[in-house]
Amino acid sequence: MVDVSEKPPTTRAAEAHAFVRMQPATLRSIRQLKNPKGDPLEIARIAGIAAAKRTSELIPLCHPLPLTHVDVVAKLCKNGIEVSSRAATTGPTGVEMEALVAAAVASLTIYDMCKALERGMEITELFLVEKTGGKSGRYRRPGTARMASKPARGRA
Amino acid sequence: MVDVSEKPPTTRAAEAHAFVRMQPATLRSIRQLKNPKGDPLEIARIAGIAAAKRTSELIPLCHPLPLTHVDVVAKLCKNGIEVSSRAATTGPTGVEMEALVAAAVASLTIYDMCKALERGMEITELFLVEKTGGKSGRYRRPGTARMASKPARGRA
Amino acid sequence: MVDVSEKPPTTRAAEAHAFVRMQPATLRSIRQLKNPKGDPLEIARIAGIAAAKRTSELIPLCHPLPLTHVDVVAKLCKNGIEVSSRAATTGPTGVEMEALVAAAVASLTIYDMCKALERGMEITELFLVEKTGGKSGRYRRPGTARMASKPARGRA
Amino acid sequence: MVDVSEKPPTTRAAEAHAFVRMQPATLRSIRQLKNPKGDPLEIARIAGIAAAKRTSELIPLCHPLPLTHVDVVAKLCKNGIEVSSRAATTGPTGVEMEALVAAAVASLTIYDMCKALERGMEITELFLVEKTGGKSGRYRRPGTARMASKPARGRA
Amino acid sequence: MVDVSEKPPTTRAAEAHAFVRMQPATLRSIRQLKNPKGDPLEIARIAGIAAAKRTSELIPLCHPLPLTHVDVVAKLCKNGIEVSSRAATTGPTGVEMEALVAAAVASLTIYDMCKALERGMEITELFLVEKTGGKSGRYRRPGTARMASKPARGRA
Amino acid sequence: MVDVSEKPPTTRAAEAHAFVRMQPATLRSIRQLKNPKGDPLEIARIAGIAAAKRTSELIPLCHPLPLTHVDVVAKLCKNGIEVSSRAATTGPTGVEMEALVAAAVASLTIYDMCKALERGMEITELFLVEKTGGKSGRYRRPGTARMASKPARGRA
Repeated sequence: MVDVSEKPPTTRAAEAHAFVRMQPATLRSIRQLKNPKGDPLEIARIAGIAAAKRTSELIPLCHPLPLTHVDVVAKLCKNGIEVSSRAATTGPTGVEMEALVAAAVASLTIYDMCKALERGMEITELFLVEKTGGKSGRYRRPGTARMASKPARGRA
Repeated sequence: MVDVSEKPPTTRAAEAHAFVRMQPATLRSIRQLKNPKGDPLEIARIAGIAAAKRTSELIPLCHPLPLTHVDVVAKLCKNGIEVSSRAATTGPTGVEMEALVAAAVASLTIYDMCKALERGMEITELFLVEKTGGKSGRYRRPGTARMASKPARGRA
Repeated sequence: MVDVSEKPPTTRAAEAHAFVRMQPATLRSIRQLKNPKGDPLEIARIAGIAAAKRTSELIPLCHPLPLTHVDVVAKLCKNGIEVSSRAATTGPTGVEMEALVAAAVASLTIYDMCKALERGMEITELFLVEKTGGKSGRYRRPGTARMASKPARGRA
Repeated sequence: MVDVSEKPPTTRAAEAHAFVRMQPATLRSIRQLKNPKGDPLEIARIAGIAAAKRTSELIPLCHPLPLTHVDVVAKLCKNGIEVSSRAATTGPTGVEMEALVAAAVASLTIYDMCKALERGMEITELFLVEKTGGKSGRYRRPGTARMASKPARGRA
Repeated sequence: MVDVSEKPPTTRAAEAHAFVRMQPATLRSIRQLKNPKGDPLEIARIAGIAAAKRTSELIPLCHPLPLTHVDVVAKLCKNGIEVSSRAATTGPTGVEMEALVAAAVASLTIYDMCKALERGMEITELFLVEKTGGKSGRYRRPGTARMASKPARGRA
Repeated sequence: MVDVSEKPPTTRAAEAHAFVRMQPATLRSIRQLKNPKGDPLEIARIAGIAAAKRTSELIPLCHPLPLTHVDVVAKLCKNGIEVSSRAATTGPTGVEMEALVAAAVASLTIYDMCKALERGMEITELFLVEKTGGKSGRYRRPGTARMASKPARGRA
């Protein structure tokens, strides 16, 4: 684990993105909310938030960080479900992995909730959208417009 | 959580796949094994195996299962790193999620190990390759040849 | 931990109950579903299921068990929210603690979701409703009618 | 998860209460300390402290906090066992949930240790006694006298 | 992780040992039970049992196993505290690591409880005493007499 | 858990040591890196780092701390494998337990990886080498020279 003992705590945030590609028929079933397990989008949101808090347990060389914000939004789109996540902390290192873990686990939860409908769903476009704070400053993924579906700041 | 109390325990296995796309320069650095954090492929393998064992903690409606096998192989390819995973159990329900979680977390670990080289890496093609066992029988993803890099049975 | 090495695995189930008592105004707010954090009843359900799977980590002398079913139902009532839980396994020991942990953590999650509305909410009547299976056989708490709101078998 | 990125870290504390109601005969057995599993009160204390540290894993929208103090006291009373807990942190949000989780898990551990004596024990009066610190300031539950059995500050 | 999918579940057990060496003055303080944190021997016992249940989370290539028994005994001796542990399961692979993890974490807990008295305590002689069951059969460490302090079968 | 609410956060570090004693034939096999499970030294390093982050879950009265550095080095020696660990934080209490847990779990992982070669391996000399920071200041174990193999600061 990189030694960050001498880096001062600063405000840091990161946003990530993932996409769960599926057949139109699968999407239609989800829209009709007939899944007997519950609402996949809401359960995915909760699972993503919970997973972000356990990032340092999953990723061997990640530092444990006192997260000050995590949110996940899952939105039905034309060919699947788009997942956006955001994490923030005040700490000596960044939260890129926390945002990516949130998006990944939310997507995997959607797969789990809907796999009886379609085993062939595919998780794709899992990437970092933006990070701010820290010595290296701001990074914005080229070609990503400010997404309409991104988790609003200040929401739960 | 679906009630599987009356399903008999049977042998079940699943394989999953993911791909971490990166720039040629990033790949070259990884090949030269100059990462001061350690070997990303080996650390990713361990992280994927460890994560598979915690699948039921990450995915809210997954059943806890006594896994009898998990393995992950990460292989340098032309445009990135290909991750293959396998999980097996003797239980009343399948291990698709365990294989997918292993592939996802191994991929995220590669991202973490190499993010100082390239923040724009993207995880893609995270899907189920095959599952066997259970009432619904065998599923093989269309178009996936038996991969050369898949985790050999009986290996650690 | 009691040695259950020589007890044969059998089918076991348990149901538990809890009640979160609150002011009428708090209940009205929840009914109007204006909580910016999400739907408290659904999030409580997920939290209770997830916690049941971690019972042996929380309760020091509990055996780890491969749960075959967990469900939680949270229902708005006259003076608060009633929580019902059910757990099942095929194993050498019972799942009373898993059902009780599910009901307790679901209730605590409701508290967390609504504490900005009312800090004085109280969790009460957390008890075992029924257990079946095992050498000691069936136990039914005196005075508990078969509840209408209990988790239906076979649901998620 | 509510965004607390801009709230300054301040000293915060919370106390919670729970009661495990049981038959006089059960209480007598516990008093005689003949439980072959160990001393239920001491094991409950340890379980409650350990659980408080995992609050953010159990309660989906709780922030992870670096706790600076947790303690639990379990005391034999006339009709059962009274559990008092205290948690403290220096952070941007409060520790009410940590104190409540500690009291709940300590109570559930008492149930587990003694359930062979009496399955009908009931956990009740699980509530927040007091919280201090933070923008909303001090809250004291009406009608709760400063309890004699409350965890002393500075104790382990 | 070694593939044990085709190994039948059989009864397996293991015992481990550790020794926490300390100064006579430290031992005397522990004997007088004046530790304000609680009784170190009892807390160590609970910590060791709890850790055994998490062995597959700590040791990367360990299989998750449904433990049917774990116990730990910590005993004051002439030059320190002797820790004995026992684990058992019915599964396809052995519980040596579970017994060793229990003994190690119990010893570390004793260190934690008493480190204010003596920082120089040393954990030593952490080894497997015996394992039974499985294809390789019984192993008994040469030179270890059947210890008087070993965890009795059937105890908690 | 000791109340550290009023102790100011300061920089703290600790180093620990362990030794896994084994037969020359076992050491030779490890040197030849023919272990089908992977490189035991590297896997032990990762397991030790991961375990340090979970210290407060394993040791009941340990405070959760935001670690700023953990590293483990495992080195082949004449009669076995020497394990050195280092942990650091900026917090109100020390990281001795984190360093000791890292060394212990790395050693146990070496045992797990090599136990098929030799069941009689023994973990010994698990002790604190040094701690710095905090009110009690620096402690250096008498007789421990500054080890050549100790984890270099600033490494992963």
